[in-house]
Amino acid sequence: MEAFGNTRLQLRDNGRLRHFLTLDGIGRELLTEILDNAESFTGVSERTVKKVPLLRGKVIANLFFENSTRTRTTFELAAKRLSADVLNLNIDASATSKGESLLDTLRNLEAMHCDMFVVRHASSGAAHFIARHAAPHVSVINAGDGRHAHPTQAMLDMFTIRRHKGDFSQLRVAIVGDILHSRVARSQILALNILRAGELRIIAPRTLIPAEARNLGVHVYHDMDKGLNGVDVIIMLRLQRERMRGARLPSEHEFFQRYGLTEQRLRLARPDAIVMHPGPINRGVELDSHVADGAQSVILQQVGFGIAVRMAVMSMALGPGPAP
Amino acid sequence: MEAFGNTRLQLRDNGRLRHFLTLDGIGRELLTEILDNAESFTGVSERTVKKVPLLRGKVIANLFFENSTRTRTTFELAAKRLSADVLNLNIDASATSKGESLLDTLRNLEAMHCDMFVVRHASSGAAHFIARHAAPHVSVINAGDGRHAHPTQAMLDMFTIRRHKGDFSQLRVAIVGDILHSRVARSQILALNILRAGELRIIAPRTLIPAEARNLGVHVYHDMDKGLNGVDVIIMLRLQRERMRGARLPSEHEFFQRYGLTEQRLRLARPDAIVMHPGPINRGVELDSHVADGAQSVILQQVGFGIAVRMAVMSMALGPGPAP
Amino acid sequence: MEAFGNTRLQLRDNGRLRHFLTLDGIGRELLTEILDNAESFTGVSERTVKKVPLLRGKVIANLFFENSTRTRTTFELAAKRLSADVLNLNIDASATSKGESLLDTLRNLEAMHCDMFVVRHASSGAAHFIARHAAPHVSVINAGDGRHAHPTQAMLDMFTIRRHKGDFSQLRVAIVGDILHSRVARSQILALNILRAGELRIIAPRTLIPAEARNLGVHVYHDMDKGLNGVDVIIMLRLQRERMRGARLPSEHEFFQRYGLTEQRLRLARPDAIVMHPGPINRGVELDSHVADGAQSVILQQVGFGIAVRMAVMSMALGPGPAP
Repeated sequence: MEAFGNTRLQLRDNGRLRHFLTLDGIGRELLTEILDNAESFTGVSERTVKKVPLLRGKVIANLFFENSTRTRTTFELAAKRLSADVLNLNIDASATSKGESLLDTLRNLEAMHCDMFVVRHASSGAAHFIARHAAPHVSVINAGDGRHAHPTQAMLDMFTIRRHKGDFSQLRVAIVGDILHSRVARSQILALNILRAGELRIIAPRTLIPAEARNLGVHVYHDMDKGLNGVDVIIMLRLQRERMRGARLPSEHEFFQRYGLTEQRLRLARPDAIVMHPGPINRGVELDSHVADGAQSVILQQVGFGIAVRMAVMSMALGPGPAP
Repeated sequence: MEAFGNTRLQLRDNGRLRHFLTLDGIGRELLTEILDNAESFTGVSERTVKKVPLLRGKVIANLFFENSTRTRTTFELAAKRLSADVLNLNIDASATSKGESLLDTLRNLEAMHCDMFVVRHASSGAAHFIARHAAPHVSVINAGDGRHAHPTQAMLDMFTIRRHKGDFSQLRVAIVGDILHSRVARSQILALNILRAGELRIIAPRTLIPAEARNLGVHVYHDMDKGLNGVDVIIMLRLQRERMRGARLPSEHEFFQRYGLTEQRLRLARPDAIVMHPGPINRGVELDSHVADGAQSVILQQVGFGIAVRMAVMSMALGPGPAP
Repeated sequence: MEAFGNTRLQLRDNGRLRHFLTLDGIGRELLTEILDNAESFTGVSERTVKKVPLLRGKVIANLFFENSTRTRTTFELAAKRLSADVLNLNIDASATSKGESLLDTLRNLEAMHCDMFVVRHASSGAAHFIARHAAPHVSVINAGDGRHAHPTQAMLDMFTIRRHKGDFSQLRVAIVGDILHSRVARSQILALNILRAGELRIIAPRTLIPAEARNLGVHVYHDMDKGLNGVDVIIMLRLQRERMRGARLPSEHEFFQRYGLTEQRLRLARPDAIVMHPGPINRGVELDSHVADGAQSVILQQVGFGIAVRMAVMSMALGPGPAP
């Protein structure tokens, strides 16, 4: 599932973070350190002056080969709160249209003394490829590659769960929806295993569960009502409508009937269960608006925590550590 | 004409500015305070270091649902001169294309701790809608909504008039052109009434005057020569060519014949009359190049004052007040 | 060849740089001063905090009428390292689409107190035109205009040569490829003449050499092997594929056969010859990948030096001089 070779690629010899590409091969201690550092950054976003000078004079380039204003914006804000300079590069529109190879583009950005590449790409493994070829002074953050990984999303999810639930060892967590195509789900499952979540369930139709699911340390449910029974955390995935055209499911309406989260179904979970979603949500497809906006939804908190988590990862990769 | 409900929406309980959506319901004292604050900011643009630290660490998001590089640039420069961080978001190209609702987009930006939304939208009432649903920590500035309002444009016009003419009570002001479709004209008329301009005239063909014009406290002229007679201030409106295709007027050429400002016509106004235009100008359609570039034109001054006025509004909404 | 009139346009009365449009009319002393200043800035890019406060509060507008992410990025980074604020304006997409004239766009940007325009345009002479009409407080940098000039590119090439070879007077330099259409070649030839390079050769098929070549103080070669014999510096030009459709040459393949730089051909030059290219490179068209990535290639160094050279030019035009 995480088949891009050397899992040590993203760590320095002293075990510190150099790149952040995947949760595969990252130890519990390091993950917890990211969460702890993010904790210290949550305060920055709430201050009147939302800035710390940790990365002043550093240049962070957002290399988005796949458009995502929302994700780019959270990385841009995280970088600016650390006082870094940000370059937004839509790769499509420029170099590759002149026939330059990806590696030549990277070499050029390195020669301009960029310190970090935040990479979003439609192909699985793109961030690893770039990291493998990056100059020694450059760090690479994976902001989502194909169906493979989206590690900062998974980390902000872990941060949100820890904030609300504390200890992971007693938790029952359910991930619901299109597991098969979801880089978010892949990274969440790795993170929850590393953090030793009590019980991990995935809930989806047979057609949207990857073949290797049985090896992931998860319990598979096809019936949503059974899967939600007694859980502490419900993570709804985004339905990639463009990927559904292949007709693995009859319709959005039928999907909602079987796997949409309604108030009624939510009652099957523990009364203090939290509802999460990576966004953007499709109201009436993955979940009911009453649930999305309800008391148990922490979806908007996730967004804010996403900036703190990205500040933590960026400062750990580029700097000496979190703000004092 | 300004039918978006609660005119107190944009003021805090203590009467201070929270949003800036319309001039409707804004008192003379507050308008004058904006002008006075803008006065203190004009100096900043002329300094070697064009920066004050008033909004350092604040995040201002330009939400442009309608493209306008010129207006976005003046807001961006105003924000940067106040040391704020700026996010430029072209909403079209991202969230809505993924089917996310406008309110979900806003909730997300709020969760990222944005402090201000500068909103440009083709639909009248869009900025009010956003302000009504904004989180308590967020301020909304209307940068033009449909045919409704463009309050910062009107304020920079008032600033320009005050700079050149001082007291409003003795002034004769003429607004010329497509009043019917102009959010700029609507906001100017409100501002000039609030500031108690001596006499306010609108000059346009019958087809380009709104039905409710008689209630606006204005004198309506269809003959340009008569309307210009003895005025102190001439405000030319931009002809929205794309709106003219509906054939309310035969041609640009005929429009210029009847309502274009030539040197000859300008002589009908007072010798010290000033000529204004919100830009971008259509030379040979709304006004002759000799007039646009002539000694009585203050069109380029308006642009510079626009930054000072926007700095004033931004700092009043987000901060404790103007620079000392 | 440089037929845009007043060569003093870009100098102040005291001989200091005001604009940087062309190398025509720039003296050896001033060119050397730019190189010396760039030398002092190379250190900035390698520091942990890649910033000097020389242009804090200045506004630099990138006016790119022709898309070039790579060139824009180097100017943007140079400006940010000098602590200036940067506006990126894609002119196509905005003002001109509303029918505003170029001069009106410039007047507006000047009224917003922009301090510098970095201009890229498909028409030869565009930067001169803008400089001739610019307000007294504004400096214009030519970032490439049509087939005419690209002076900062030529300066970074001179910087690279000086770094590697020191004195110009003993050097044999060959420029290879499409001289006819190349603004880069034009500026390089001027620079090498000003700096009194020992011998300057151009190597190209007859169809890609301008008629006036004999007046340029260069030796013309149509046979690449003869032209490369004993040179110290090889500057490969980019083949503008889109310009080749006019069939001045049969094919890229044939071009590479006759004028492509291979390892074998490189051996005809001096053993310590350096290989340069303005980028982006077309591997297998202008040069072999082994040469592009080989020990004699300084192509990526050119990119980094480009930022230092642009910092030098920007700070000389806008400020009192280089960093101490």
